[in-house]
Amino acid sequence: MSIITLTSDFGRIDYRVSAMKGKILSLNSEVTTVDITHDIQAHNLIQTSYIVRNAYKYFPKGTIHVISVDSFFHKSRKNILYKADGSYFIAADNGLLSLIFFDIKPEAIYEITLNNRFDDIVNFTATDVFIPVAVHLANGGLPEVIGRKIDAAKQLLFPRPVFNENESMIIGEVMYIDNFGNIISNISRDFFETLAKGYENFTIKFRNLSLSKIYSSHCEVVADWERETEYHGQSAAIFNDSGQLELTIYKGSKKNGAKTLFGLNVGENIYIEFF
Amino acid sequence: MSIITLTSDFGRIDYRVSAMKGKILSLNSEVTTVDITHDIQAHNLIQTSYIVRNAYKYFPKGTIHVISVDSFFHKSRKNILYKADGSYFIAADNGLLSLIFFDIKPEAIYEITLNNRFDDIVNFTATDVFIPVAVHLANGGLPEVIGRKIDAAKQLLFPRPVFNENESMIIGEVMYIDNFGNIISNISRDFFETLAKGYENFTIKFRNLSLSKIYSSHCEVVADWERETEYHGQSAAIFNDSGQLELTIYKGSKKNGAKTLFGLNVGENIYIEFF
Amino acid sequence: MSIITLTSDFGRIDYRVSAMKGKILSLNSEVTTVDITHDIQAHNLIQTSYIVRNAYKYFPKGTIHVISVDSFFHKSRKNILYKADGSYFIAADNGLLSLIFFDIKPEAIYEITLNNRFDDIVNFTATDVFIPVAVHLANGGLPEVIGRKIDAAKQLLFPRPVFNENESMIIGEVMYIDNFGNIISNISRDFFETLAKGYENFTIKFRNLSLSKIYSSHCEVVADWERETEYHGQSAAIFNDSGQLELTIYKGSKKNGAKTLFGLNVGENIYIEFF
Repeated sequence: MSIITLTSDFGRIDYRVSAMKGKILSLNSEVTTVDITHDIQAHNLIQTSYIVRNAYKYFPKGTIHVISVDSFFHKSRKNILYKADGSYFIAADNGLLSLIFFDIKPEAIYEITLNNRFDDIVNFTATDVFIPVAVHLANGGLPEVIGRKIDAAKQLLFPRPVFNENESMIIGEVMYIDNFGNIISNISRDFFETLAKGYENFTIKFRNLSLSKIYSSHCEVVADWERETEYHGQSAAIFNDSGQLELTIYKGSKKNGAKTLFGLNVGENIYIEFF
Repeated sequence: MSIITLTSDFGRIDYRVSAMKGKILSLNSEVTTVDITHDIQAHNLIQTSYIVRNAYKYFPKGTIHVISVDSFFHKSRKNILYKADGSYFIAADNGLLSLIFFDIKPEAIYEITLNNRFDDIVNFTATDVFIPVAVHLANGGLPEVIGRKIDAAKQLLFPRPVFNENESMIIGEVMYIDNFGNIISNISRDFFETLAKGYENFTIKFRNLSLSKIYSSHCEVVADWERETEYHGQSAAIFNDSGQLELTIYKGSKKNGAKTLFGLNVGENIYIEFF
Repeated sequence: MSIITLTSDFGRIDYRVSAMKGKILSLNSEVTTVDITHDIQAHNLIQTSYIVRNAYKYFPKGTIHVISVDSFFHKSRKNILYKADGSYFIAADNGLLSLIFFDIKPEAIYEITLNNRFDDIVNFTATDVFIPVAVHLANGGLPEVIGRKIDAAKQLLFPRPVFNENESMIIGEVMYIDNFGNIISNISRDFFETLAKGYENFTIKFRNLSLSKIYSSHCEVVADWERETEYHGQSAAIFNDSGQLELTIYKGSKKNGAKTLFGLNVGENIYIEFF
């Protein structure tokens, strides 16, 4: 049974999401459809890339991921089918795939030719282009039938952390804030560990706060489970399960989580000073 | 495989939505269930009708649409099964179906007799009446077994635009605001074009603003894709893919979309002056 | 076909919910997955217990319910598989199951041994422990293979209503507020009726308001359906379909429902005086 996932900024109230599902069922009633999320901020490619990058890995190889963010139809813009890490991704050629796979090479990229660039046919990219392509693949159809191979898709650069050698300091930024108010930075464990080799100590600085330890899992924060309630509200830095530096308040929530207590917003700087 | 869709104002937190799904699976585990939306404003039939009217067309003929909005059980109120445009609609007899199908004649209307009007049996209309009827149909059961044919359901009148001949002016109103802040009016392309034949020009007026062109698709707004970013924030009127006049801000969102920038709310007037 | 339900406080935006669904499909693509809700307030076990207690009853016996609330992985905390009322429940050993089944004895309780307490294996309890256990059961696997029988799980006490004999008064509290603003108390019909036998009359008091009648269904509130609109906005106490005393505003919503008009919050007292 083939699987199609849906990601969009359509929200949960409009008819757009159900239109995609109805279209899938109209074309093939045996496909399994799964929502990644439809609550992406309008047109936000950075947020989309973080969520899809972390979600797709849990799905079987061969899953077809439809991503309708900034996919406004225009006859002058390509739509693409992107194969990477064993799965298919369908999106507008807006640079999103280069953000999701900034460290993984695509296996193939196709410009979608099905219904493409015909503004008398296409009203709504998702149902008129993306879903027919996804169901074609779900049915075992070849990419070549609905597209033509191209060499490259549009590239976007993710805000990457930098290392200031004079000050021995990593300068990163807040990339994402999750449902519990946890603050996820763009500083990866790999980036940190490579640089940390030359120093003995470090301090993480943001706003007026600082932390001098990075836990390797949320679990480690609570050293003694018998006294677990004493840890409620404790702030900590960890490398989270997607390998990024995360600032967290143990047992935080949207109202009293790290975002609120630390006061940080997406795009704000986080510094790590080595010494 | 039969398809049942669910639309309600139950929200996503309560157990009501999952109760409907559990009930379906208890009766027939092979049915495919799809959410249209559960975030309808409490009891709002106008909003419901706009969403269901646009969503159901994407589903295969024969799909069974359960709509639990203003479906509070009362032994003195009918529940109905409504067949129109090749599909089934199950709702309370509250006028909703006359809003969805204001321009389409029903193929048949049944008063539901299964569990109906027995307040000692029915606690919750959706699980105790609507779902058993929907699964009966999904199993290939005949409407006559769970209902009796009636001639008409309750009628409600949608707020319709009017044409003031003395002032050569259409007076419409805001009917719906979507997830991107786009403002959808009750003025259809047909209504506009029939009247426009007698005039050379027109101006759309709302609040202190006016527009003098209606695009025939979102795509047309961006005349030159190479300079696409210059169009961000541009206001425009279009006939959207459901054929209604829509006021939009290109690349708008809930925060800076047409609703916010134009300041319009549902029910406010939009005028088109011909000259 | 086996059914797995998912309940969590992960919200709809993060990748966590889709990670669980992707993991299920990676292990067995024939399972039917249903969301109960993912909008639980962070770590709120009382809210979770009310929702799951009311939802699970609609699903077929044998359904596997995964509940990821306060399920933070720690090597010193057990995760449990709880069999009760013919179905399976998978959660951390945080007392949640004792709240859901405060009046029903479990058929069996297992400490999960699969991947348990290995913090080098488990990053995320839901996908690394709960889902593999759920799919094991869905495939017809025995509980003994993934766990070992234990005698008891952690117990939590639900805030229960008390009866003050000197003042002939029940003192209960607000337990839950639903999507329509209805206020659900912890006073059950059974508790009330047992005590009410010794008295002729009663008054329900909360804030500055009082009610002296309890309807046995929402339906009863509208005595005459022909004049239904006259009842809009009427306040009433009823025993709802889960048998709890509920304060409601007929046709209320989040904005003008019982919560707003009565001003009550979760945890506030509701009194019933007998005389």
